[in-house]
Amino acid sequence: MRSLIDITDFTTAELDELISVALDIIARPDEYANKCRGKKLATLFFEPSTRTRLSFEAAMYELGGNVIGFSEASSSSAAKGESVADTAKIISQYADIIAMRHPKEGAPYVAAKNATIPVINAGDGGHCHPTQTLADLLTIVREKGRLNNLTVGMCGDLKYGRTVHSLIAALARYENINVVLISPDELRIPDYVKDDIIVKNKMSYSETASLEEAIPSLDVLYMTRIQRERFADKDEYERLKDSYVLTPEKLTTAKEDMCILHPLPRVNEISVRVDEDKRASYFRQALNGKYMRMALILKLLGEANTPKEQREGEGLVYDEIKCENPRCITSTEQELTHIFRKDGNGEMRCIYCEALKK
Amino acid sequence: MRSLIDITDFTTAELDELISVALDIIARPDEYANKCRGKKLATLFFEPSTRTRLSFEAAMYELGGNVIGFSEASSSSAAKGESVADTAKIISQYADIIAMRHPKEGAPYVAAKNATIPVINAGDGGHCHPTQTLADLLTIVREKGRLNNLTVGMCGDLKYGRTVHSLIAALARYENINVVLISPDELRIPDYVKDDIIVKNKMSYSETASLEEAIPSLDVLYMTRIQRERFADKDEYERLKDSYVLTPEKLTTAKEDMCILHPLPRVNEISVRVDEDKRASYFRQALNGKYMRMALILKLLGEANTPKEQREGEGLVYDEIKCENPRCITSTEQELTHIFRKDGNGEMRCIYCEALKK
Amino acid sequence: MRSLIDITDFTTAELDELISVALDIIARPDEYANKCRGKKLATLFFEPSTRTRLSFEAAMYELGGNVIGFSEASSSSAAKGESVADTAKIISQYADIIAMRHPKEGAPYVAAKNATIPVINAGDGGHCHPTQTLADLLTIVREKGRLNNLTVGMCGDLKYGRTVHSLIAALARYENINVVLISPDELRIPDYVKDDIIVKNKMSYSETASLEEAIPSLDVLYMTRIQRERFADKDEYERLKDSYVLTPEKLTTAKEDMCILHPLPRVNEISVRVDEDKRASYFRQALNGKYMRMALILKLLGEANTPKEQREGEGLVYDEIKCENPRCITSTEQELTHIFRKDGNGEMRCIYCEALKK
Repeated sequence: MRSLIDITDFTTAELDELISVALDIIARPDEYANKCRGKKLATLFFEPSTRTRLSFEAAMYELGGNVIGFSEASSSSAAKGESVADTAKIISQYADIIAMRHPKEGAPYVAAKNATIPVINAGDGGHCHPTQTLADLLTIVREKGRLNNLTVGMCGDLKYGRTVHSLIAALARYENINVVLISPDELRIPDYVKDDIIVKNKMSYSETASLEEAIPSLDVLYMTRIQRERFADKDEYERLKDSYVLTPEKLTTAKEDMCILHPLPRVNEISVRVDEDKRASYFRQALNGKYMRMALILKLLGEANTPKEQREGEGLVYDEIKCENPRCITSTEQELTHIFRKDGNGEMRCIYCEALKK
Repeated sequence: MRSLIDITDFTTAELDELISVALDIIARPDEYANKCRGKKLATLFFEPSTRTRLSFEAAMYELGGNVIGFSEASSSSAAKGESVADTAKIISQYADIIAMRHPKEGAPYVAAKNATIPVINAGDGGHCHPTQTLADLLTIVREKGRLNNLTVGMCGDLKYGRTVHSLIAALARYENINVVLISPDELRIPDYVKDDIIVKNKMSYSETASLEEAIPSLDVLYMTRIQRERFADKDEYERLKDSYVLTPEKLTTAKEDMCILHPLPRVNEISVRVDEDKRASYFRQALNGKYMRMALILKLLGEANTPKEQREGEGLVYDEIKCENPRCITSTEQELTHIFRKDGNGEMRCIYCEALKK
Repeated sequence: MRSLIDITDFTTAELDELISVALDIIARPDEYANKCRGKKLATLFFEPSTRTRLSFEAAMYELGGNVIGFSEASSSSAAKGESVADTAKIISQYADIIAMRHPKEGAPYVAAKNATIPVINAGDGGHCHPTQTLADLLTIVREKGRLNNLTVGMCGDLKYGRTVHSLIAALARYENINVVLISPDELRIPDYVKDDIIVKNKMSYSETASLEEAIPSLDVLYMTRIQRERFADKDEYERLKDSYVLTPEKLTTAKEDMCILHPLPRVNEISVRVDEDKRASYFRQALNGKYMRMALILKLLGEANTPKEQREGEGLVYDEIKCENPRCITSTEQELTHIFRKDGNGEMRCIYCEALKK
């Protein structure tokens, strides 16, 4: 049995297979309309996310299945103090596959360890959101026709933007990707992403604070929002913010076939005047998210009866180190063993939230 | 492609067609049980309304379709600041038709302008609630056998009661309707309804403060609630309120075949002792609402592939006049062009909320 | 037409029939996959209960039906002041069967009196929760092979634990049941349960404060949570609480084939270290709850067209005695007749919440 917690859980071949199935669903939707007849998806959303939830639900219905679940924690048993582990065990009695959104990092991983059905991480705090990355990849394939030989600009909040980190990790699997990192100094990409993903995979990259300078070279522009709260100096925010808002004016120097992505929801970082531009791919990206979720549900249900995958590997340390990340599921879950593993740099990381030992 | 924002979007012939389809659904439900197989309704309820939402959902299921959606804004992306326009564009990727309830007047119209699927207004603040009017019309047809030659009493809060205004507008399409407006002085029907609908359509009407005096003449009695908050003078409210509560005693002088309607929920404006009276039609009215919503969904899905209807017409003024109605969607939606048009009296009205230019 | 408000609404033969149908569903699920095609369950949850709600929804989907509803009161019309009676009448227009959870005792009974479709009590405050008892019974049958000749320990909060009271009432129907009541003195079983159920039915029983002493004799151990709030003396709580937490250590003296039940959610009253013990039946109990709800839905829909059952019986007193239980639905429902009946001991009880006349 497989779950999807982090995009790196899948091999390149598996990503390519998902894309291939999604393209087939698009070409022949009727062939898939009854694939999940009699199956149930549980959407366990401990915090609201309409878009992601409705995308999963639409995906399951288009496969002929049904959906049960909740859309916020107040409607769930979490209010009564139930652990994520128990919720996963019980929902395993009611449904065939789980999509879980949770504010705590690592919560879907705890669910996957305890569930007897596949679990899909639909976003765990600032940690991972792998189905967004699946949507991004299919969009690039459909808009550009390839996942290699691309110059991809990532613009905005590269420090906290988990969708950016995850997309870079996925693109690292493909050939000849050139990443252009466009952000204000305060929101530059963290070293652990740069060193552990970009440098380690020998990806070509450059950093700049200027969207306008970067734009002419790009095949793909991935926009994200810059939040005022991220800035210690509010004057700095006011000074900078407009330079990271995409407008028709800024697009005049872009390639004719550049495609513009955004994980949505946007607030104002892409002017609505851009929506009519044929390069604006972000609403098609939402549609692609539905198709990739269909492909993913099919893949995981297809492997539901295989033995459970052991994700933890070797060299683990149990309950010796305590995770101190307040956003980690270990901070709230009852009787949860704290587990650390040595990463590629020889440092100890929490297996739930991947935070380094302090 | 058509949407239903205001009951006047439909011609008399179209209203008659909807009624005719609803009657056929009642007669032959099995014929319709698979009409929407594989289709999805999105119920986007930015404020709660159980009855309306469940009526739509029941309607879609009885047509063989599925439902996705949310039941209040806190579960939606609106909490993250997403615009109604973006929500409509994204949901268009997931569903085949939208039913939207929103506290801001004009929000479903903004959705319809941006969606690529039909949008049904399921209530926008105090503005419109056209599917309630569809339920009212079918109920009158089924209880009285006709939509003309009727004396229709409207009782209660005629000032703020949008269902009353909308029903009058619909009945103006039919022959020989006599409207009896029954309300306390504070809650008389607004001039714009009286002048623009009743007078303009040469409907016969009278006004009275006495339900008891009016009741013997009525073929239909449409009750609404009088809310304490509407009265500046609370003593006046206390003095008046009981005279607008329908009781078995007040019904003794009514016609044997008068039918009693209420948009529901009621609080205490109709005594539960009236429920057993065969003239009490308000629970059957709820059932009729479901059938009309089925007919409506079928109609709009049937026209989903026709070119998008241009509802705005000519003589529009863009961004010169700002709408000052604080309940209008223009007060919150980002980058929304303010648009006014000249109405039949030569006055400028906001195209979203229909408020007059101040 | 039948509803299920209290487990005692069903005869022993009916309980046995439900168990028998549930076992057949488990053996031949495909035979049931379309039994409710075209039917709709309304889940009216005026307070959240994920597990119970999702169990009902899973049950209905596995029967081929659909589900409409709400998961908390804020999404419902109750916020607008609608009565339970009106809600029941309206939902009867939209669905085929209702499952209702409500914080007020007697609310599902009020719904059943007013609905024209069957109503299932999915929990009304501290009053009844009969589908939990159905789950308990099937679990005992499946784990022990019988419902008679059993020593059943009930451990924890026996004073407020409605699931315990209800299970005792159900087991009183079977032969040779020995009940062992295990609780701190503050939380002993109420006299009305002991006298009216245990003693009246000549059940064998004993009381003890020691789980460790009781455990070796038990065939079934039913655990419940002890809440700190229940204790006037917090030191007493701290002193006692660990003795009512089930651990692998306490299980060393238990029978090899004892089965451990818990209505869930647990907080910490069963250590997660017990989960791997084969005697731990509480997650299978959740699964059994789904099967019994399937059997129940089938039974009630099958009887939906029979005349409505009169549950109130004779010797009723109308509006002479006022129920003073603040948790009773009579405390909030509009225009609800207060009704009392004489119980077996000659005392007057509210027919809604079953509280004694004060």
